[in-house]
Amino acid sequence: MTDQRPLRLAIVGLGTVGGGVIRLLETNSALIARRAGRPIEVVAISARDRSKDRGVDLSSYEWVDDMTTLAAREDIDVVIELIGGSDGPALTLARQCLAAGKPFVTANKAMIAHHGLSLATIAEKAGVALKYEAAVAGGIPVIKGLREGAAANEISRVYGILNGTCNYILTTMEKDGRGFDEVLKEAQDLGYAEADPSFDIDGVDAAHKLSILASLAFGTELDFAGVNITGIRHVIAADIAEAAALGFRIRLVGMAENGPAGLFQRVHPMLVPMDHPLAHVDGSLNAVVADGNFVGRLFFQGRGAGDGPTASAVVADLIDVARDEYGDPFAMPVASLLAQHKADAGKRTGRAYLRFEVQDRPGVLAEIAAATRDAGVSIESMIQRGANRKDGVLMAIVTHEGQEYRIADTLARLAGSDSLLDAPMVMHILD
Amino acid sequence: MTDQRPLRLAIVGLGTVGGGVIRLLETNSALIARRAGRPIEVVAISARDRSKDRGVDLSSYEWVDDMTTLAAREDIDVVIELIGGSDGPALTLARQCLAAGKPFVTANKAMIAHHGLSLATIAEKAGVALKYEAAVAGGIPVIKGLREGAAANEISRVYGILNGTCNYILTTMEKDGRGFDEVLKEAQDLGYAEADPSFDIDGVDAAHKLSILASLAFGTELDFAGVNITGIRHVIAADIAEAAALGFRIRLVGMAENGPAGLFQRVHPMLVPMDHPLAHVDGSLNAVVADGNFVGRLFFQGRGAGDGPTASAVVADLIDVARDEYGDPFAMPVASLLAQHKADAGKRTGRAYLRFEVQDRPGVLAEIAAATRDAGVSIESMIQRGANRKDGVLMAIVTHEGQEYRIADTLARLAGSDSLLDAPMVMHILD
Repeated sequence: MTDQRPLRLAIVGLGTVGGGVIRLLETNSALIARRAGRPIEVVAISARDRSKDRGVDLSSYEWVDDMTTLAAREDIDVVIELIGGSDGPALTLARQCLAAGKPFVTANKAMIAHHGLSLATIAEKAGVALKYEAAVAGGIPVIKGLREGAAANEISRVYGILNGTCNYILTTMEKDGRGFDEVLKEAQDLGYAEADPSFDIDGVDAAHKLSILASLAFGTELDFAGVNITGIRHVIAADIAEAAALGFRIRLVGMAENGPAGLFQRVHPMLVPMDHPLAHVDGSLNAVVADGNFVGRLFFQGRGAGDGPTASAVVADLIDVARDEYGDPFAMPVASLLAQHKADAGKRTGRAYLRFEVQDRPGVLAEIAAATRDAGVSIESMIQRGANRKDGVLMAIVTHEGQEYRIADTLARLAGSDSLLDAPMVMHILD
Repeated sequence: MTDQRPLRLAIVGLGTVGGGVIRLLETNSALIARRAGRPIEVVAISARDRSKDRGVDLSSYEWVDDMTTLAAREDIDVVIELIGGSDGPALTLARQCLAAGKPFVTANKAMIAHHGLSLATIAEKAGVALKYEAAVAGGIPVIKGLREGAAANEISRVYGILNGTCNYILTTMEKDGRGFDEVLKEAQDLGYAEADPSFDIDGVDAAHKLSILASLAFGTELDFAGVNITGIRHVIAADIAEAAALGFRIRLVGMAENGPAGLFQRVHPMLVPMDHPLAHVDGSLNAVVADGNFVGRLFFQGRGAGDGPTASAVVADLIDVARDEYGDPFAMPVASLLAQHKADAGKRTGRAYLRFEVQDRPGVLAEIAAATRDAGVSIESMIQRGANRKDGVLMAIVTHEGQEYRIADTLARLAGSDSLLDAPMVMHILD
C-alpha cells in the first residue's frame, strides 16, 4: 500500500494558518513521511501579496500568481485552500480543483457551511477527496470522530464550545468580574479577537461549525440557514455573577438535536452546570460532545484555533489523502443525506435564566410575576439586586422546566412596558 | 466508491460485547448501511457454548462449531474476534484469518499488546485490515485519534485513565470515604469488577492499553514488557483523604513519554491536581490525553467499557473496512516503527507523595526526616495524623520536584526499620 512518490502540494493563502502548515511540514517531515507512507512536499504557494513578510522562508517554493492555474497542473496532487470566505476566490478554486479531479483540503468553515453539499457532490462525481477537519474545532479531530469514530451510532445530540474567542471573553469576564466591552477590547489588543469581531461574538462562526457537525452526526443535509443564532454581546458581568451564585457558568454553546420533532440547531449563550464537562472548558479551548445510542457521551477537547492546532488538522487530512484513506466528505453520498425539517424550538422543554433590568419602583416585581404567571412559566428561583447598580434594579429568574414558547410569551407580555430599562436577556440552561 | 454488496461477518465470541455488536448491527442497520455505503450483515457466529442463553435471538445466524474453518470461507468478508486472551484460540484465529487475507477486527487488548506487531506484519503482507479500536478505552475513538487525527504531530506524551473498574473503585472510595476492600467487594457484587479482579486492579489491563497507545503515539515498537506496573490495591482511604486535603484526586494513570531519554511507560496510581481534566473523570469513564508539538493537548473522554461502547468501536472498525478506508494497523509499516530503549525512570523528575504508617513513639519522625535528607529529597509539606487509627500514626509527605531515584533511595534507607508498621506507599504527582 505504500507509495514512495511524494504527495505534492499547492498551498493557497499564506496567513497564520498557511505559515503554520509550512512550518509543520518542515518540522515534522520525517515523522510525517513515516506515518503517511511517503513524503509530503510543498511544490507551489500562492497568496494575494507576494511581498508580505510571513516569518517563514518561502524561497524554495514556486510562487504562483494565478491560483486558477493550479487545478490543471499535473505536478500537483492536492490543493490546500486557506484564504477563507464563503464565496469568492476560495469557492471558485474549490470547484475548479474538485471538478478537475484534484483532491482538495480546506480550513474554510464558512465555505463548507454554505456550499459543503454542492462541493461534496462535485467531489463524489470525480471520486476525489474533499477534506475539512480544520474547519471545525481547530486541532480536535472531531470531523473524523463523528464521520468515522462514532459512525456506528444514531446520534441524538451534538453540542459544544466552538468559538475560542467567545470562550476567552466569557471566561475572562468570569475570572475578573469585568464587563464585555472591556474584555473584548483587551482581547482585540492581544490579538485574540479580530478588529471586526462580529463573526465571532455574534455566533456566526460557531453556527458555521455547528451546521457541519450536525450534518455529520445525524446524516442530515447541511442546513446553515436553519441555525438560530444569538451571540454574547448582551451577556453582562451581572449575568455571570448570578449564574455563578446559582451553580452555573456561561458558555456560548452550539447545540444540534435530531429526532421526530425535526432538526434543531442553535448557537446561544447557555448556563452550564458546574458538574458538566463544558463548564471546565476555559480560555480559548474548544470542546465537542456527542450523545450516541450505543457509545453514550463522547467528549473531545483541545485547542480550537491558532496556527499550530489548525495546521495539525490540515496535515492530518493530507496524511489521509497520502494513505488513500478517505471517502465521502459527509460520511455518506450526498444523495443519502436526509432532508430534515426544522424543529419548532418553542416546543422544546427546558429551564431558562431570565434577566431584567427594571425601574426601582413599587409594582415592577408584580408586573413581571404576573407576566410569567399568565404565560404559564413556573419560577424556580429569583434574585433581585439593586446595590452597586447605576440605574434600576437587576432581576434574575431561573424557571422550572417548561416549554420555550412560554418564555417568548412572557417577553411578549412585557414588551413596551416602561418598567424595563433594557431588553430582557434569556439564556437556556444545559440540563 | 460505493459497493452495494453487503459486508458479511463472522462473530467469534458471544459474551457481553458479542451480544452488543449483534444488537447494535440490528438496531442501527439502516443508518450503518448509509454510512458504510453498503449493508453490514452477520453471516456466522461461533462461541464455546451453543446452549447458553445470551438474551439475543441468534436463530437467524449460522452457528459454527469449529472457528478454524472461518478463515477459508469465501462467503465471509470479515472475522470479528471477541473471545479475549492474549494467546490461545484468539491468537490462532487472528493468524489464520490474516494469513488467509481475511480482514480481522478485535477488541482483544491483551493479544494486541503481546502480539500486535507480529499480527500487523502478517496483515501488511496480505494487504488486509487488522483493526482494534475497541481494545483501548472502549467507545472512545482514541486509536483513530492517534493513528489519524493527531498523525501530523510529534507526540511527547500520552496518558490517561484506561481502566474503568479502577476508576470506579477510586472515585467511590473518594465519594464515600470507604476502604478499598469494601468498595471492591461492592463493585464485584454490582458486576463492575470481575470475580478475579487482578487484571484490572493490579494495572495489567491498563498496561496493555498503554503500550498500544504508546506505539501509535510515538511511532515506536510496541513494548508491553517495558511498562512498569503498580495497581491500586495499596491505596487506602487515608491516602485519598490526604490527597484531597492537598488539592489532588487519586487516579490510576497510564503514562508514556518518548524522547532522547528513551521510552517511558508506567501504570500507577497518581495524585492528579484538581484543575487537570483527569481529576474530573469519574466513575467508570475513561480518558486519554495526548500532547502534540503542533496541536497542543488533546483530550478524549467517554465510556471505556460495557457492551454498548465497545460494540460502537467494533462497528466503527467494520465501517472503515466496508468503506475501504484503512491502512497499516500501527499507523505505519511495522518496519518503520522505531526500536526505542527503555528510559531510566529514576532520572525523571517530579513531585511525589509518600505515606508511612509508623509506630506512635518518639524518634520516628526524626528517622524518616533523616532518611529523606540523606537521600536528597526535599519536603514540600507533611501531615501526621494519629487520631482514629487503630495502630500507629499516618505520615503523609509531599516532596518538592526531584529525581525519582532519590525516592527509592529514601525507602531503601528505611527498609527493615521497625518504626514502619507497613510498606510505605509512593505515588507520583501529575504536574
